[in-house]
Amino acid sequence: MKEYVIGIDLGGTKISGALANLSGDIISKYVLPTNASEGEESVLKRIFTVIEKVLEDGKKSSEEIKAIGIGSPGPLDVKKGIVISTPNLPFENFELVKPISERFNIATYLDNDANVAAIGEHIFGAGKGTENMVFVTVSTGVGGGAILNGRIYRGSTCNALEIGHTTIEKNGPRCNCGNYGCVEALASGTAIGKRAKEAVQRGEETSLKNYKEVSSYEVFKEAEKGDKVASEILDSCLNYLGICIANIIASFDPEMVIIGGGVTNGGSIVFEKVREVVKERCFDSMANSCKIAPAGLGTDAGVIGAVALAITESDR
Amino acid sequence: MKEYVIGIDLGGTKISGALANLSGDIISKYVLPTNASEGEESVLKRIFTVIEKVLEDGKKSSEEIKAIGIGSPGPLDVKKGIVISTPNLPFENFELVKPISERFNIATYLDNDANVAAIGEHIFGAGKGTENMVFVTVSTGVGGGAILNGRIYRGSTCNALEIGHTTIEKNGPRCNCGNYGCVEALASGTAIGKRAKEAVQRGEETSLKNYKEVSSYEVFKEAEKGDKVASEILDSCLNYLGICIANIIASFDPEMVIIGGGVTNGGSIVFEKVREVVKERCFDSMANSCKIAPAGLGTDAGVIGAVALAITESDR
Repeated sequence: MKEYVIGIDLGGTKISGALANLSGDIISKYVLPTNASEGEESVLKRIFTVIEKVLEDGKKSSEEIKAIGIGSPGPLDVKKGIVISTPNLPFENFELVKPISERFNIATYLDNDANVAAIGEHIFGAGKGTENMVFVTVSTGVGGGAILNGRIYRGSTCNALEIGHTTIEKNGPRCNCGNYGCVEALASGTAIGKRAKEAVQRGEETSLKNYKEVSSYEVFKEAEKGDKVASEILDSCLNYLGICIANIIASFDPEMVIIGGGVTNGGSIVFEKVREVVKERCFDSMANSCKIAPAGLGTDAGVIGAVALAITESDR
Repeated sequence: MKEYVIGIDLGGTKISGALANLSGDIISKYVLPTNASEGEESVLKRIFTVIEKVLEDGKKSSEEIKAIGIGSPGPLDVKKGIVISTPNLPFENFELVKPISERFNIATYLDNDANVAAIGEHIFGAGKGTENMVFVTVSTGVGGGAILNGRIYRGSTCNALEIGHTTIEKNGPRCNCGNYGCVEALASGTAIGKRAKEAVQRGEETSLKNYKEVSSYEVFKEAEKGDKVASEILDSCLNYLGICIANIIASFDPEMVIIGGGVTNGGSIVFEKVREVVKERCFDSMANSCKIAPAGLGTDAGVIGAVALAITESDR
């Protein structure tokens, strides 16, 4: 009986791997730096090493492994197991799944990191037991994944839930994607930091000017201490995040929206504001029936999500 | 063998029924005025009459009928077969499915009109053969329905695809729902007509002032004749519709978005503008892979959709 899986969280700075049983209990873990600059083949070899190491440390042979799940930044071709391109990894139209599944003779599944996180939250995190849930991650960018009718919804090109690039302000600021007024340009951690820098540059009276570098972290910190400019920036950006979540509820009518990513480290202020805006903007029946919850998986979210991907895909 | 179904399109002014085979070919049709003011029981009896008449005219007995599908304005409780309330019908928390299925001893399924139209387009219309498609109707209001992973996606309270009430302009005009900047307040037929009336009231130089009553129909007509004000109103409202469709593509990544409803009678100008905005605002790969098409079912769309609902639900 194959009673174990391996999850790999492939990131721009590190490759995290875990061997787990089918309940998601982690048996062994291993992390290597990605060293992306060394190129495709080198990164692939480091993935091999991580897999070999978690097998060895967990005292399992590859025959005991049901599946390997890999979470990677996109865009990907999930069906073909190809990384099409990604800003922080060297892969260009690189077949990632095939060499791994062939080397270890284990079924291997790839998905983008937002989908993997959604699957992780659904199987092991805040979304356990839901039929319809949307996961939103708010950090440098804004992304998402959805479990609909009980399973991951990928869309026709595996790019569903690109909600960071939905428009919520027709003439809003320009986004990195080239569009104007995207959620990502208005409500991401980057957007919060940018607003703070602009306020300092305009010479506004704010404690934010005491920092050499200002990011969303400092804005949350100074807002908590009572700085008016920092509070106004947060209120405005979190209002936009609330609009984004309200639009998700109107579109997907989920039982739960789970919000994760660095910005949620801001804590209760984030969720209070989002819930207030959802109450204002959504139909009561939908707003009341949809729970808005913080992500349940901690720092291991990426690798636990990859474990969950391996479990759910090999079970289908 | 039960080789026939009945579809009922329940509207504020008329009840349309059709008997069809499992390929959707209509064998008999019958229409009665709803006479909503006569109350719940009277409307229910008129539905009975329509069902009896299509059976009689089609020379079939109720034993030969696999299922009855009913499309109704919402909000509904689809699982319980209840019409919760609706502005143009007398029903208030009215059990609609039970008395019909009991009287005829036929499995009966209820769904809201936007979902029914989406199912109709998927089975018999422009969306045939797609795995993931979104149907959007733009007339007095803006609504939608989605086929995801090959079947209707209803959400957790059967209100998914309330895209008319997603926000695309934070400080936009007030919507009937109480929110500001909803798609419905910016891009519906009603919104187009309202903008025209306001232009006339402001005394703008436009041929629209020659009409006693001005609706979206007149705006399309005068824009086509070259009226500048009418053209500007259309361009602005269709830009908002384009943003709505771009947000749908970013969220659902569908193979196809089908647009129906009165506003699409405006013709190619509608689709050209929507496609232009989608190209501007969506990632190229998603914009290029998603077809934007007019609805394929004509004036019988409601009743054909109800037939499709009966076929698909009884097959599950």
